Amino acid sequence: MLKTPYLLFLGDAPDALAAKVAQGVKDWRPEFCVGQFRMSGCNADMGLADMTIEEAIAAGAKTLVVGVANRGGQISESWNAVFEQALSAGMDIASGLHNLLTDNPSLVDLAARHGQSLFDVRIPQQRFPIANAEKRTGKRCLAVGTDCSIGKMYTAIAMEKTMRERGMKVTFRATGQTGILITASGIPLDAIVADFMAGSVEWLTPDNDADHWDLIEGQGSLFHASYSGVTLALIHGGAPDALILCHEPTRTHMRGLPHCSLPTLEQLRDTSLNLARIVNPECQVVGISINTAALGSDAALAYMAEVEARMGLPTIDPFRHGADRLVDALG
Amino acid sequence: MLKTPYLLFLGDAPDALAAKVAQGVKDWRPEFCVGQFRMSGCNADMGLADMTIEEAIAAGAKTLVVGVANRGGQISESWNAVFEQALSAGMDIASGLHNLLTDNPSLVDLAARHGQSLFDVRIPQQRFPIANAEKRTGKRCLAVGTDCSIGKMYTAIAMEKTMRERGMKVTFRATGQTGILITASGIPLDAIVADFMAGSVEWLTPDNDADHWDLIEGQGSLFHASYSGVTLALIHGGAPDALILCHEPTRTHMRGLPHCSLPTLEQLRDTSLNLARIVNPECQVVGISINTAALGSDAALAYMAEVEARMGLPTIDPFRHGADRLVDALG
Repeated sequence: MLKTPYLLFLGDAPDALAAKVAQGVKDWRPEFCVGQFRMSGCNADMGLADMTIEEAIAAGAKTLVVGVANRGGQISESWNAVFEQALSAGMDIASGLHNLLTDNPSLVDLAARHGQSLFDVRIPQQRFPIANAEKRTGKRCLAVGTDCSIGKMYTAIAMEKTMRERGMKVTFRATGQTGILITASGIPLDAIVADFMAGSVEWLTPDNDADHWDLIEGQGSLFHASYSGVTLALIHGGAPDALILCHEPTRTHMRGLPHCSLPTLEQLRDTSLNLARIVNPECQVVGISINTAALGSDAALAYMAEVEARMGLPTIDPFRHGADRLVDALG
Repeated sequence: MLKTPYLLFLGDAPDALAAKVAQGVKDWRPEFCVGQFRMSGCNADMGLADMTIEEAIAAGAKTLVVGVANRGGQISESWNAVFEQALSAGMDIASGLHNLLTDNPSLVDLAARHGQSLFDVRIPQQRFPIANAEKRTGKRCLAVGTDCSIGKMYTAIAMEKTMRERGMKVTFRATGQTGILITASGIPLDAIVADFMAGSVEWLTPDNDADHWDLIEGQGSLFHASYSGVTLALIHGGAPDALILCHEPTRTHMRGLPHCSLPTLEQLRDTSLNLARIVNPECQVVGISINTAALGSDAALAYMAEVEARMGLPTIDPFRHGADRLVDALG
């Protein structure tokens, strides 16, 4: 969908956190990144060559990726001069921010005149079919969480890296804005109309070689009332053969819902598997991914050992210890 | 949302089935219906007075409701002259068909000039919030099914009629096109963007008197891969206190999915209740509604007696025997 390679636009990012989308692209698709574009006042640095638009074009850049978010996730007025320069010089622009490139008439006009495209990756770029629940060839793995924003994308993309290193056939399938920008394709599932959610996930994960794995980016949580429908569409559209359970052990309530407590890993396992087997009776829960960022090293190891003994499943933090044991568990 | 009363537009309906939306309005909201408008060739009849546009206006009609669908659910070219007449005379028009009134520039122009509105009830008429899962006052009941199109709407609206007759506080909450046209308000849940599904259902079922029941129109099925996400959003947004299980005993596979079998009523009960209690721990399954249209009278009674004994829940066909026992079960 997006043309690669990218010039990463860091704008006037006040700190590294503001440029976390750019960091994700740099971490997971370094081969997509020819350089970075920084404005005065930028305090983020991807360790890439600083380039002007002209230098990036000369280095082969096809798309300027907005890798920065200001407060509120909006496009800053001050960025538009750079965007205009990029379009005029022959680059597409891609953004995952809340306000849209395509809502700016002068950018739309400039893009049309120069034959370039504006990609607002929050907006579905096509129509999708209704799901048909037909069996597809190839294997699929989905991470599901006790809550939102708990490490599901990280788990899948870390597994993809390990599987690539091992020479396995694997594709990370992005279902959210950051994942789409990182991998240059995918679906913005939370922006798709209800009737077509599951169909869009089927479209995203088509027939493939028998030994190929799609690692589908998780969204929401079955236990999060705001987004659970999105999660179930992902489970029934994706028809996973393998589920990974994701958890963060110090979280005290569901994200954004202070009155709602998290389920146990046992509840997550049983509820997810019950629902997944409606579409794929062969589905198995194969491992557990713990986000231990809030725990010291010893506490993290002790917690994971306890979970592994209790649940009888390989339990790791892929950020701290790599994704190998989860990949092994795919069999 | 829609202004009542209605003039029901039957167009050139080739048979009664083509006018089933009009039949639903006539059956469930006779007080909304001042008359019917039939074109030459119409073979449907609601038993209402046939009226011209002028006669309907004189009788107080505020909205022309398109109660007919031609093959493919499209608006016929031949209807437009009537629509233009209605707008010019001071009526709104409401339609649930696939092609849109608002995609016809001459209707849009005419409506604007006469200060009238075109309501395509398939299209959300507003923006909805993200669900917050906060406890609301009042009671809510939701029908869930072993499959789609199995009698969930009929069950809820039949219960509403019985509860009104008993003087109970009750509101049928429409979540689909037909329900919206029947009751003049509601949300087209399957057309709402994924992130806002559950929030739209919360909006639809706000705080109410402690002894008031919302009877929420069900959609899809947790066991139907194409639409299960919509159903879960309805369960988590609606936070029902009471669930009714709906089933059709002769159906051999999930609607539109010939390779997928139906779940048992036990599976429907356990899966629905497990998910509903995430948001409302007090939720109970209170009764079973069987669509026995395909069974003879004795076979229907025998089947329902068997289900009632096996499941330990009041089991009826509200079409054949009225909704009283389901209403009794609300307690």
